[in-house]
Parts: sequence; structure tokens; C-alpha cells
Amino acid sequence: MSGLSPSQRRVVEQVERLTTSSIAPLAARYDGEGTNPVESWRVLWREGFLGAAIPKAYGGLGLDMPTYAAVIRTIARGCANTAMTVHMHSTVMRFLEALGTEAQKRKYFAAVVRDGTLFGSWGSEPAVSLSRTFLMETSVRRHPDGWVVDGVKHFCTMALGAGYYLIWCALDGEPDMAKGLLQVLVPASTPGVETDGKWNTLGMRATFSPSVKLNRCVVGADAALGQPGAATTVGVVESFGLGYAAIYLGIAEAALEFAIDYAKKRIVKPENVPVAQDPTVQRHVGELRAHVDAALLVLAESAADWEQSDMVQRGLLANKAKYLATEVSLDVTSKIIQVVGGRGAYKDYLVERAFRDVRTATLMPPTVDRMLEAIGKSALGIDTPMFRFGSGPQGA
Amino acid sequence: MSGLSPSQRRVVEQVERLTTSSIAPLAARYDGEGTNPVESWRVLWREGFLGAAIPKAYGGLGLDMPTYAAVIRTIARGCANTAMTVHMHSTVMRFLEALGTEAQKRKYFAAVVRDGTLFGSWGSEPAVSLSRTFLMETSVRRHPDGWVVDGVKHFCTMALGAGYYLIWCALDGEPDMAKGLLQVLVPASTPGVETDGKWNTLGMRATFSPSVKLNRCVVGADAALGQPGAATTVGVVESFGLGYAAIYLGIAEAALEFAIDYAKKRIVKPENVPVAQDPTVQRHVGELRAHVDAALLVLAESAADWEQSDMVQRGLLANKAKYLATEVSLDVTSKIIQVVGGRGAYKDYLVERAFRDVRTATLMPPTVDRMLEAIGKSALGIDTPMFRFGSGPQGA
Amino acid sequence: MSGLSPSQRRVVEQVERLTTSSIAPLAARYDGEGTNPVESWRVLWREGFLGAAIPKAYGGLGLDMPTYAAVIRTIARGCANTAMTVHMHSTVMRFLEALGTEAQKRKYFAAVVRDGTLFGSWGSEPAVSLSRTFLMETSVRRHPDGWVVDGVKHFCTMALGAGYYLIWCALDGEPDMAKGLLQVLVPASTPGVETDGKWNTLGMRATFSPSVKLNRCVVGADAALGQPGAATTVGVVESFGLGYAAIYLGIAEAALEFAIDYAKKRIVKPENVPVAQDPTVQRHVGELRAHVDAALLVLAESAADWEQSDMVQRGLLANKAKYLATEVSLDVTSKIIQVVGGRGAYKDYLVERAFRDVRTATLMPPTVDRMLEAIGKSALGIDTPMFRFGSGPQGA
Amino acid sequence: MSGLSPSQRRVVEQVERLTTSSIAPLAARYDGEGTNPVESWRVLWREGFLGAAIPKAYGGLGLDMPTYAAVIRTIARGCANTAMTVHMHSTVMRFLEALGTEAQKRKYFAAVVRDGTLFGSWGSEPAVSLSRTFLMETSVRRHPDGWVVDGVKHFCTMALGAGYYLIWCALDGEPDMAKGLLQVLVPASTPGVETDGKWNTLGMRATFSPSVKLNRCVVGADAALGQPGAATTVGVVESFGLGYAAIYLGIAEAALEFAIDYAKKRIVKPENVPVAQDPTVQRHVGELRAHVDAALLVLAESAADWEQSDMVQRGLLANKAKYLATEVSLDVTSKIIQVVGGRGAYKDYLVERAFRDVRTATLMPPTVDRMLEAIGKSALGIDTPMFRFGSGPQGA
Repeated sequence: MSGLSPSQRRVVEQVERLTTSSIAPLAARYDGEGTNPVESWRVLWREGFLGAAIPKAYGGLGLDMPTYAAVIRTIARGCANTAMTVHMHSTVMRFLEALGTEAQKRKYFAAVVRDGTLFGSWGSEPAVSLSRTFLMETSVRRHPDGWVVDGVKHFCTMALGAGYYLIWCALDGEPDMAKGLLQVLVPASTPGVETDGKWNTLGMRATFSPSVKLNRCVVGADAALGQPGAATTVGVVESFGLGYAAIYLGIAEAALEFAIDYAKKRIVKPENVPVAQDPTVQRHVGELRAHVDAALLVLAESAADWEQSDMVQRGLLANKAKYLATEVSLDVTSKIIQVVGGRGAYKDYLVERAFRDVRTATLMPPTVDRMLEAIGKSALGIDTPMFRFGSGPQGA
Repeated sequence: MSGLSPSQRRVVEQVERLTTSSIAPLAARYDGEGTNPVESWRVLWREGFLGAAIPKAYGGLGLDMPTYAAVIRTIARGCANTAMTVHMHSTVMRFLEALGTEAQKRKYFAAVVRDGTLFGSWGSEPAVSLSRTFLMETSVRRHPDGWVVDGVKHFCTMALGAGYYLIWCALDGEPDMAKGLLQVLVPASTPGVETDGKWNTLGMRATFSPSVKLNRCVVGADAALGQPGAATTVGVVESFGLGYAAIYLGIAEAALEFAIDYAKKRIVKPENVPVAQDPTVQRHVGELRAHVDAALLVLAESAADWEQSDMVQRGLLANKAKYLATEVSLDVTSKIIQVVGGRGAYKDYLVERAFRDVRTATLMPPTVDRMLEAIGKSALGIDTPMFRFGSGPQGA
Repeated sequence: MSGLSPSQRRVVEQVERLTTSSIAPLAARYDGEGTNPVESWRVLWREGFLGAAIPKAYGGLGLDMPTYAAVIRTIARGCANTAMTVHMHSTVMRFLEALGTEAQKRKYFAAVVRDGTLFGSWGSEPAVSLSRTFLMETSVRRHPDGWVVDGVKHFCTMALGAGYYLIWCALDGEPDMAKGLLQVLVPASTPGVETDGKWNTLGMRATFSPSVKLNRCVVGADAALGQPGAATTVGVVESFGLGYAAIYLGIAEAALEFAIDYAKKRIVKPENVPVAQDPTVQRHVGELRAHVDAALLVLAESAADWEQSDMVQRGLLANKAKYLATEVSLDVTSKIIQVVGGRGAYKDYLVERAFRDVRTATLMPPTVDRMLEAIGKSALGIDTPMFRFGSGPQGA
Repeated sequence: MSGLSPSQRRVVEQVERLTTSSIAPLAARYDGEGTNPVESWRVLWREGFLGAAIPKAYGGLGLDMPTYAAVIRTIARGCANTAMTVHMHSTVMRFLEALGTEAQKRKYFAAVVRDGTLFGSWGSEPAVSLSRTFLMETSVRRHPDGWVVDGVKHFCTMALGAGYYLIWCALDGEPDMAKGLLQVLVPASTPGVETDGKWNTLGMRATFSPSVKLNRCVVGADAALGQPGAATTVGVVESFGLGYAAIYLGIAEAALEFAIDYAKKRIVKPENVPVAQDPTVQRHVGELRAHVDAALLVLAESAADWEQSDMVQRGLLANKAKYLATEVSLDVTSKIIQVVGGRGAYKDYLVERAFRDVRTATLMPPTVDRMLEAIGKSALGIDTPMFRFGSGPQGA
């Protein structure tokens, strides 16, 4: 929490208490079942955290980016699935703030603040690789009652848990996203929303992100956000990546702390000393600690610079934080199992889940190759195309 | 299969057919259930492969080490759990051949060849870290009926599936293993063998390796193998590591081939070209392929040099093969998920299980640090202490 | 320069101008000749920078640690040898401030501020490995005229360029450094100081650091600093490492910027586009940029926390910054040559020298293994022995 | 030398003796001076090794590829510059054998066998990046006396030492290399061959590879080899890479052995034990040894498969060997300096030169990215464009 003011810290400490007492204890169960962490959402909602990214004027916490990133990271230390779903939801809130009309804001923010409704964001599609080309085949068209949405989405996080789904569409099937991209808020109860509910994955199991068919779904006139093409120009889509970085690092920190605690307590014979006294264990822990700390500093700096940065700069800030968090968290969650040893593979131990969750969560676009390309272009003074986005892991 | 003769290749091709047709299709189920791959064992038994390491004179296949390593690796491509359990069992066969009396060999080899009995090998214990010090607290003592065994073992692979367990004991609790180490074959049905049956792990789930309490277990006079202290002097314990290397590489190869196949078939819009055309995918595949091939050559060379090598050299051969296989397989099974993308985390896909199995299986002792130390000592002309061994993942 | 105030920035900008205009242009020549960068020292002296670490009350700049680290790093971007020698000298100034009497301070600080005298610090010895055990065989004894010093030192930076050498001695040959360590300032002109002047190395050639024999060197009573054993208890020795980190990163930054500039300007046929347009070049640059930025943040944070940290914490701050700077700078200066291509090996190009200087400068103790051990111990809650120190590269 | 027959080994042992006795002792001097290793060539010539790749029918040794690779690697252990220049020369011999007329073979092979003449091969040009596009701007045209060559070449190895230069040209400036590529043997004494003789580099200094201007150089009718476009279709250009791999590994092995020897002999106080007893040193040595051994096996396998492989397969064999040798040799020569410690940077020690030579020699095309792409394409079943070639480091 370096760099946070006392009042920012208080918010983080509040969510830390909630996480430790009420969210972390449920994490293994939700992971096992592969169902959305509904009780954890409720805990967060009761203390206002579903409105973390909603402006105060609408009843939210209106957290600045450094506090927000620290909050998401803190939740991830206890339950990566809760952190990921709340981050998705919060990013929809940012789109609403940036693109919504006053009436839309009042309506949808109230659903969150008053009713605890979650909002999903679905971008991925079966035939497109978002990490390669940003393209939507799901179409939205005018309809006497408002809009009609048709298409198939993949990696539909919170498919049966959210109240609204922010569907990334092409207006009238327009293939040029700069002209046709339109985000439409589809209520979960809309006729025509169909899913086979298949979601059985390595990790991030409680995001419950099956494929969903949107079968001529008719929604109201106030379902569409902003002008066509506007969604990727308001400096919001970039914040997906910053939150991912916070989640990866939160998981990595929790795994590292578990291993440190284990190494301090595990006594081995015949010396009867803790494993922590083994110089090779010390070196592994030292290496992981140093790299986690460096990535945390980059995350904190990216968050601190967010507000005063334009869209292009935000892309770079997010990419740097996400790239380093990706590398570090994959490394930490794998090596730490070796530090713990055979027991590191037990499902009773947090590191087992951390290993699965990080490998899964780091599949969210953009890929490492695309991030490096973008960071490199920026360093080389080349105008960088926008940060690639989506609501689920990158589909290759 | 570079370096194998036509007759050696035929054996490998035979097990390849069995694996593809009858073993691989069951792998996901055994993994999910966490139960021993009993049907796969039967398939292998019917064609003689449970006797892979049993001399021909006793009805076994009497495979030389290059063929044996290729067989284990081939099975691992289809089911890591089957490969691991069969390798454990086969290593017990090697101990029997090296240490058993003629009567013991006849009796126990027949149980395998004729009845399809599996043999487990249990070394790990709760309070000791085998990767640090080789020490057994489980004791064996003389008894009017033969021997009595007392102790607790961890990571007891095939605890409810094998017919016999090779228990690593200290004779009369002697702490100096050079004097007191004694391996005792305990029938699974022996009164006093107790387990809570808890085994819920990241991967290698179908090895089913819970903790077992040996509660004053009385066994016959012919249960103990060889003279006290002899077990680690006969050049057999080193072969654990060589087989592990074969298993890690088999899993890695299968994962790589899955990803290659996926990249060739997965077409993305709007270009409508396979993912295989992406230069970044090509480079990742190229890097993994090159490293897998190098590790395979080292494995083949270690296996080829086995027969004419003494105990110390075998330790080095096993360490080099296992070290490189560890690094490569961890790298391949993690990176390949990124190559596949979001779908790489689906449980339907082989790479998901490969990722979990490799991270778990590579916890088998010795640790990377100990292997490097041993290889380095050898390069530096320092007499290297014996290869560390055990029947389960290293307990840190 | 993130985190620096306007007035701190002005100091850094001042030294940046000096470096660009007067220090960098001489770097290749000093490197080629292997002689101390005497003219560069003079340039720095004229604007007060030889007194960077001397308190204002004694005519120095009295820079705080963040500004100091930025100054050293900035000089290193132009000439690593100048940065290293000035950092050595400045660290002697810190010892003087911490341990010297008022009379000593007045005398020695004046030699710097008024006369431009440099001070070396010699710790390494032929038979000891500082990275393993901190032990001095060079002895100091009382003498009617003050003190007499006897011994042999290795890696004696500025052996023919400094006016005084801070010799790390054992009082009366006491092997327990906690009781016997004593630093003695030996004037360069003292009879008995002998060197064969051999210093022909890969990089850091202009530090000119040959072996020196101190042959019954008699010095005055005011030559010894502080009480025996005090030198490593005042939180100064740790600052060696922080400065090293600044130097490594300064070199890496300069190399990276050279390569970026090269990639932007180098046009290749037949496409007639700059190399910067190559996606593989972009990714390499992106990766290096991200890691350099992370290491810079860690350096900045370590410097910012310096003042309020105790000796143990300073050791950790220095180790983290130095460890990351070591890894990053070795990686950057090697990979960047590949980015530049064949011309990257030309001596006309800065990256050739950067590659040699980083590999050499990162040999300064403590080694990577010791740093990781220390960071790990701290993370594991184990009291960490002091930061290892010395005046030259670690002697293995 | 695993896999070599007794008669093959005898050849390697012969060149090993020459290297140890007469070539290695001169290496530091040639490196320092940056002049061709003329005396080392003479030593090799006297025992026939300049004809290593010349068929026996023409007085050469006619070595098969495994023996040839072992010979080059052995020379590189003593002097990388000798190995590189002899390998360049030998590859020209292979082109001659593949493309030359009987008269050309007789003439040019005799110049080698009888007179000890060296042949250079110059492909690189200032404005083209061979690692990106294979394109020659140097033109060759018909002339009453034979041919006339015009152009500028970079990285002209042996510019003042060889008797003939194989110039890679475009016939009549044809930009399509498949139609126009023509190799022309230009005698060193030809009027119009001009060089400023500038070659001052990090490493590989004694290859002496300045830029050369070919200023309307008229050569005889028998100077051109084969039909236009043929040069890259005969399975020879691929052997550049295999020899590079042998050179990189030879340097790495020598550096590793130096460090091992050093660690065994260097005793440190106060323990008075060799550095080789330090577990961290053991682990570093173990890691490097394991990776060098793996790369050596890949090199040996690639060489063993050479004869029966077609052009495309040879490209893959060369790329795998060169890629692994590149990574391993860069890693070994950098880390080994850390193992040796401060003295590792001394020019008196072999590791200093090894570090510079490997970083320079590994710049030879193709780049790591291109090799990985090619290996990956092959694994993905995509027809791979030919191995990129050239006579000097890749120009980016």
C-alpha cells in the first residue's frame, strides 16, 4: 500500500477485513463447485464495494484508481474469482459513467447500489481472436421496442449470476468497429438468452463463464451506451488490464505468504529446524519476493498516473503493469509449490488453487506478445493501436 | 525413438497402440475420480508390460533401459498416472531382482506375471524431508512369525490398488541408514495397515497416494529384501529418477502435440487462416519443440549408458535427465496453454491435465536444487552422495 | 526521475548537462586507455559534485539519497567509470561523516571541496572471498607517529588517481571484525604503497583497480576513523550497493536508448522501412523497457526509504535494488546487441562498452546468491547478517 | 565425442593436440591485435585441416559432418577466430564441390591443399538485413575477360588474409535471387578491391571483417560457380549454421572447464577450502554443465543426420543446433564470469575473451527469432523458407 494516503488505506483495510473474515473462507467451496461467489458479492455490496467505481454522486464509493487497484488486489488475495467478477462489473460501471446518459446512470447505478445487481461484460466470440483482431460478429439492430441483439459470445463471465450483461455488438453487423461498435446492456431475464452452462476449467472456476447464445434478444431503447464506435475511445477499456494486473499480483502475494508461513512452521528431522533455515529456500523466497515487490511498484505507479493520462498512455500503463504481473505471478505460483514441496499439491492448501487461477486468469487478453509489442512501439515512438479487450480469456 | 533398434521399436509401438486405444481414453476419468487406473493396468498386464522390468527367466519382458524408458514415456503421453504407477511398480521389480533370493523372486514375480499384482514403494514420512536427509522412522523388528513393521508413511502411491507395498524401514529403528535400511514387502491385506484415504491434489490424482499407518503389521520371514543397508547400493534407486524424466517428457510431448494440432485446425476471422500461421505462435512452438527434443536426447543417452554405468554414474545420468525434463516439462505445459489461448484452460482439453500433472509429478525427489548440486559436484570432481529417493513427492 | 521535487530535478539536470557535454565524450578514450577519468572528475568537481555526499556545512552539496542515486545513475549513462569512481569516493565521504571527528571532517572534506581530491576505498584481499566471509588480513598497529599499515589489497580502484585510500584493516590483526575492523586513510604519497599497476580487464577499465601492497605504511594519528568495529554499524556500508544499482541501471538505460535510436534510424531494403517497424524488434524493446522501468522504480523506492531506515533495513533496500538492477542490466546489455545486430559489436557504438562494463561492474559484492539469501531471510523473518561489502569486484 | 567411431576420434584428437600445443597459445595475441590467425592456419594446413571439407579425391580430408563439427568445435575451444575463419573457408569448399566444374575444383582445391590458400565468403551488404530478406545489391556482369563485379560488402571476414573471396552477387542486378544469385570467386589481388581496414569489435576480432568496396573488379570466366540461382539449392548454405553451433559450444565448453579448474584450485580463507565446495558454485556449474551437454547432443545428432537429409531438413537440423548453442553459450559465458568472480574480468583469463567472442559470434544470421520461427513452422507442418545465410554477423 505504498503511496496511499491514510484515508485510502482505511478503505483498503476495510476490504481486507471483509476478505479475511468472509470472502477467503468461501473461496475453496466456490472453486470446487464452479459457481459464482454470490455470498462474497453480498458481503461486498453491504459495505458499498460493488459501487467501488460508481461516482459518489450516484451512491458509489467513487474510488480513485490507486485505491481501486489496491481493493481488487486485496480481494484477490482471498478469492480470485470474487476479485475478477467484481472487476468486470466495475469496469462496466466505468463504461456507464463515460458513455451513459443521465437517465441511464441513474437507472443502472441504482440497480447496483440499492439492489446489489452485478453487471457482466461479454466481448469474446467463437470465431474471432481478440488478441489478433478486434471484431464483433454479434449484431445489434434497431427494433420497434428498442434494439435486437443476435450472436454468440464465449467466456461469458457471470452468465447466470449477473443481472445485466454488457454485450459488445456491431451495429447492423458493421465490420468496421470504429463505426459500428456498440455496447448494449441486456437484462439476464431477456427471452432468447441461452446457455448450455458448460464451464469446467483449470482455474477461475467460479467466474462461471460458459458460451451464451443471444437469440434475437429484444431490449429497450435505453439499453445501448453512447454513440457507435465510442466505447473504445473513452479511456475505460484500458482499465480491464490494470485490474487484471492487480488480481494476478494479489494471488501471487497470497501464495508467497502461504509458503513463507509454511516454511517457518514446517520442522524437519533430524535437524529439527524449520525449512525456512534452508539457504535454497531462502534464495527462492528472496527471488520471488523481489520480483513481486517490483511488479507491485509498477502497478502502483500505473494506477497513480491513471487519472492524468490520456487513452494512449493508459494503454501503456495497463500493459506494463499487466505484463509484469503476468510474468511474476506465473513464476511465483509455480515455484512456490516447489518450495512447499509435495504438500504444495494438496487441494487443502491455498497454493494449489493459486497455481490454477493464475494460469487461467493470465489468459485474459492481450497476450504477452501483444503487450510487449505495444510497449515496444511506444518506446520506439510508434503510434500504438489501442489496447485489445474482451470479457474473457483470449481465444486463440 | 532415435537410437532404438527395430525390435526395441516394436515393443514401443506395441505399447503405443495400447496407450492410444485403451489407456488414453480412460485418463480423464481416473484423473477426475482420483482412483487408480485399474483397467489400464489390466490392459498392460495382458500384454506383459507389468513385467517390463522382470527378467525374461521369470516370465517378464526383461526390457533394457532404453526400451523401458521409451515405454514409460509412451504410456505417459496417454496417461501420466498409469505411467507413474507402473514405473513405481517396475522399480520394485528391479529391487527384487537385485536383492531378492531365488525363492522371493519366484514368488513375487509370479504374482505380477500370473496375477497382475501391482507393487507400491513407500519411502516418504511425515517428519522427514527426503530431499534434505535420507532417514526412515518406520521401524522393522524380528518377530516369531517373521517381521513386524511400525510407522507412518506419506505419499503412499497405490495405497488401495497394489497387492504389496515395499516399505522402506529402519531395522530396529537404527538411525544410520547405511546399517539399518531394510525394505520389507507388506501384503495389502496385512492387519494393521490403515489409511484415511485422503488424496485430493492438483494433479497425479490417480496415483492415489494418501498417508498410511502401519500399525504393528506382522509379515512373513520372506518379506524383507537383502541385507540391511544394501538397498541403496545396488544401482536401482537411481532408476526412479530416470523414469520420472520419461514421464515428464511424455506429458510435455503430448501437450505440445495437442497444441500443434489445435493451432493447425483453429481458424480465426477475419483472415480465415489457422492460428499456426501466426509468427508468434510459430516461435513459441519452435522454442518448446527445440527444448523438448534436447531433453529427449539427454534421456535417450542416459538410458543408453545405464547398463555399463556404476551406481555413482547412474545417479548422474538420472539427475541430468530428470533436471532437464523437469525444466522443460514445466515450461512446455505452462506456455502451451498460452499458445492454445482461453480454451487451453478447458478440462475437455488434454493440456489442462498435463499442466496439473507435470507440476505435481516434478515434486518427486530430488529437488532441482539437489540435482544441480549433484551434477555440479560431479563436474567439479567431488564425490557425490547418493541420489535421493522416495515413493512420493518430496516433502519439504 | 519520478518522485523527485523540482529542486532535486534541477541538480540531476545539471549533472545531465555536464555528462552529455563533457563526460560522455571522453568515456571511450578512458575505456580504451584504462586510465582514471581525471578530466571528468575535474568537470564534476568544478560544479561541486565531488562533494555530493559531503554535508553542506562542510561545503558539499549534501544531497539526499534519492537525488544522489539519480546523479550517479545519470553520470553512468555517459561514463560508467566516472560514476563508479565518484560513487566509491562519495561512500568514503559518508564514512567520514558518520565516523570522523570534527577535525577529521574539516581536513578531509576540504581536500575534496577545495582541492578536488578523490578518495578510494580498498577492502578486497587476495586470500579472502568477501562474498563468503568478511575478513581482513591487512593489519593496522599503533606507531609512535600514528599508525602503521601492512597488507595486500586487490581491486584497488583509483590506485594512482586518488589522493587518499580508505584501507579496511584489522587492528593488531584481530580476526573478529566486530572487534578489530578499522578504516585508515592512507595518503597516496605514503612510502611503502606499491603497485605493479596491472589492470587489464573486460570492462570498468578506467576504474584502474590493480593490486596494491601496503608495506609498513606509516600514517598519522588522525588517519583512523572511529572506534574499532564501528565501520559496519553506521548504515553506510549498505550504500555501496544502492549506488551500484544506480550505475548498472544508468548503463542499461543508455544502451537501451542507443538501440531505440538505432532502430528508428536504420532503414533496410528492400522495404525501406526502419528496423523499428519489425514486430520482433518491438517485442524485444518492449520487454527490456518494462524491466528497466520496474528496476528503476525499485531503485527510486529504496532511495526514498533510505533516510528513515535502520542499518538492517538499508541492507534489504540495497539488496533489492542491486539484485534487480544486476539481472536487468545484464539482460539488457546482452539482448540489445542482438537488437542492433552485427554493428552492435562495433567499438564505435556505445552498446559494446555497456556490455563489457555491466558484466564487470555486476561482479561487485554481494553476489546474486548472497543477495537472494538476504532478501529471503528477511521475508522469512530471520535476522539477516549485514550486507557484505568491499571496494572491488567480489573475489571468488 | 559421443557417437564417433575410433577413426573419427583419431582425427579429432589430432586437431585437439594441434589446438592445445600451437593454436590456443596464440589466441590472446590475435584477439588483441585484431589480425587473422595466420600462424594457426598454417599449423592446420600442414596437417591437412584446411582441406577438412575437400573430398579425398582432390587431396582433402573429406571429413563427414560429425567429424567436421567435432573438429571445428575442438579448434574453437582453443581459438574461436581460427575456428570461425576455417569454417567459413570450409563452407566455400562445400560450395565448390557442389557447384564447381571439374576444372574449377582442380584449380581451387589445389590452391588450398598445396598452397594453404584461404577462401572467404562475403554475403552481407550495408543496406540489406539478411536476417529479414535475402537480397544482393552487389552485381556481376559479363565482361570480355570473364566477369565484372561491382558493389560493397560488409563483415568481410579475412579481407586481408584470404587468397580468394566468394562474393555473393546478383547477375545483372537481378533482384530475384532465385534467378540472379551468383557466387563469384574474386582473387584478393584483383584491382579494384578496396578496404579501409576498419575492424574494431567486441569479440571475434581476429576474423578481421571490415567493409570492402568491389570497384569494377574484373575476374576470369572460371570465377563464377554454377548456374544463377543454384547456390542456395544445394544443401550447403545450411552448413554455415551447423558450424556456428560447433563454434559457440566449443567456446562455452572451454569457458566452463576454465571455471571448473579455477574453482578447484582457488582456496579461500578462513575455511581454507576450494571454492568448488560452495554449494552455490556447485549448482551454477551443474546447471551450465547440464545445458551444455544437452546442446552438444543436439549438435551431434544434427551432424549425424546431415548426410541423409535434404535441403529443408538440413535447415531444420542447423537451426535447432544453432538455436540451442546460441542460448547455452551466451548463458554459460556470462554466468561463468560470476562463478569465477572478480578475476573473471581479467584479460589474462580465458573467460573474458570467451564472453566477448560468444556475444559477437552469435550475431551471425539467422537471428534467434528467425530460427524459432523456422523450427516452429516445421513443427506446425508449414513449408519453411530456406535457412538465411551470409558471411558475417547479421546486419540489423
